[in-house]
Amino acid sequence: MRKIIRIGIIGFGNVGKGVLKAVGKNSDMELIAIFTRRPKKVHDEMESRGGGIFVFEPEQAFYNSGSRIDVAILCGGSKKDLPAQGPKFAERFNTVDSFDTHADIPNQFRLMDISSNKGDRVSIISAGWDPGIFSVQRVLNDAFLPTNKTYTFWGRGVSQGHSDAARKVTGVADARQYTIPIESALEAVRKGKASDFTKRQMHTRLVYVVPKIGADLKKIKEDIKSMPNYFDEYETKVVFINKEEMAKSHSSYPHGGFVLASGETGDGNKQILEYRCQLESNPEFTGSVLVACARAAFRLNKMGRKGAFTMLDIPPCYLSPHSSTVLLEKFM
Amino acid sequence: MRKIIRIGIIGFGNVGKGVLKAVGKNSDMELIAIFTRRPKKVHDEMESRGGGIFVFEPEQAFYNSGSRIDVAILCGGSKKDLPAQGPKFAERFNTVDSFDTHADIPNQFRLMDISSNKGDRVSIISAGWDPGIFSVQRVLNDAFLPTNKTYTFWGRGVSQGHSDAARKVTGVADARQYTIPIESALEAVRKGKASDFTKRQMHTRLVYVVPKIGADLKKIKEDIKSMPNYFDEYETKVVFINKEEMAKSHSSYPHGGFVLASGETGDGNKQILEYRCQLESNPEFTGSVLVACARAAFRLNKMGRKGAFTMLDIPPCYLSPHSSTVLLEKFM
Repeated sequence: MRKIIRIGIIGFGNVGKGVLKAVGKNSDMELIAIFTRRPKKVHDEMESRGGGIFVFEPEQAFYNSGSRIDVAILCGGSKKDLPAQGPKFAERFNTVDSFDTHADIPNQFRLMDISSNKGDRVSIISAGWDPGIFSVQRVLNDAFLPTNKTYTFWGRGVSQGHSDAARKVTGVADARQYTIPIESALEAVRKGKASDFTKRQMHTRLVYVVPKIGADLKKIKEDIKSMPNYFDEYETKVVFINKEEMAKSHSSYPHGGFVLASGETGDGNKQILEYRCQLESNPEFTGSVLVACARAAFRLNKMGRKGAFTMLDIPPCYLSPHSSTVLLEKFM
Repeated sequence: MRKIIRIGIIGFGNVGKGVLKAVGKNSDMELIAIFTRRPKKVHDEMESRGGGIFVFEPEQAFYNSGSRIDVAILCGGSKKDLPAQGPKFAERFNTVDSFDTHADIPNQFRLMDISSNKGDRVSIISAGWDPGIFSVQRVLNDAFLPTNKTYTFWGRGVSQGHSDAARKVTGVADARQYTIPIESALEAVRKGKASDFTKRQMHTRLVYVVPKIGADLKKIKEDIKSMPNYFDEYETKVVFINKEEMAKSHSSYPHGGFVLASGETGDGNKQILEYRCQLESNPEFTGSVLVACARAAFRLNKMGRKGAFTMLDIPPCYLSPHSSTVLLEKFM
């Protein structure tokens, strides 16, 4: 099997840049092409890094370039980009994406499965940390503790969706929303003392807002706090700051979370399983997971497999750069 | 595919009993046979539970019973039982075991692979939490964060090996050893501030000892604390108690541990991944993991696979009782 896996990136936003950086840390990978809607800027950036990377626009140019790319990593958004790009590219390339609209995963899986099968390719969908690693932990918890209750907590970290929602409120120039898990709820699960939580009992929301000049601050606060689905079911705090403070203190994308399971074995012995990630950069970590999944997609396809997969379908060893000998000797 | 997986247990100690209890919590499993060296006692126990379970002795009788068992779960010890039983049973049955002598795993894997291939069977070796789940977490950490450092901490919990070692000291009637992780070391890793630790910096050891009548307590203390490999490299505390206290407060098998990885992505963004289990019953949890792996062994073999596997080779979905539809809808 050829050693170097040739990667293409479709969509060069935060996650795409995370993939670029992750490829640089994996010696069995090489980035050879990027599709972006800002080709001039990205082309110049790539030239300044030493060049040798094709930068395509429009999408179709990447699509037609085809055969030299082993795995195309789709880094677009789940709302518009992936539903359209996914099934198209999955027919021509092995693909990996981080499709994260949980409710639509079954349908996206079905569409990607049809395309990948048609093209004899492998697509791995919904990779990342949630969905992705957290999904794996939820399934492991349930398999090992059939009577368990599993809780997923997010944060402390920036939620793009909630930040975008706050930004749409009248009078808001900019906003950044932090999701914060409630420590006492985490502790209750860790002690095996949790029952069902309401949303309000698991997380609080903290919104930093830069108001427009002359905006009605009281109304902004009310409009955010009462927004259905996003904020009304939570204890939400709104803090007004200026543009400079936003740029200085809130320009990175930290995130993280917990998957906590509390179950029993035998006649009531408590067993608690906890997975946690604390990420200084959410998009860079997501990029790193996508790259490991690209390795798995490449291998699965070389073995003759095709169709759609999630991380639930992938043996951990396929994600690893190490040989089975090294894994048996150093990781077991 | 037939729904009910027929399980046999080889070796009815603490882990074997954990498997019995775990099978009872999984509706797609049925226990049909036990091999034990105390057949009369176990037979009576099974009768009192309603009967219908074959109890075999000697080993060969179980071996000859053969074809009705889908997966034989080998619950013997790693020192003597599994090296002998494993390769023998793996030729006739799909097997799962918790072989945990880390240094010998590559060789045991090789032997089990030969046998399983010869018999067209699947064997899953070294299942449990460490090796097992912890191995999976170590591989995931390394795949997602190639520049990471992963630390495994154990405890707080009872180590059988260290308890046995302390029991061999002259003047000791009984002993129970707790391995305790050092909180400040855990915190250093969680903050991304850890470097290399010595053994002494990661764990302390606490030994409860029931002395024989008239024994030299000072000498017992010295002999335990200075014992090479087991205690001399750790801060070890020896506490003398009486037989009643031992029976009352130290008869269960709690354990647990942490797999903690600290890595960086991009230009120095810290990413911390942590897996933790807190187990009130180590053998019952191990039994539960073995049972989930039995499900995977059964499925792999039905799909025509054969040979030896570890949990690193198994897609998470194979461990789960749920259909891929349910997994996509409820667990992603």
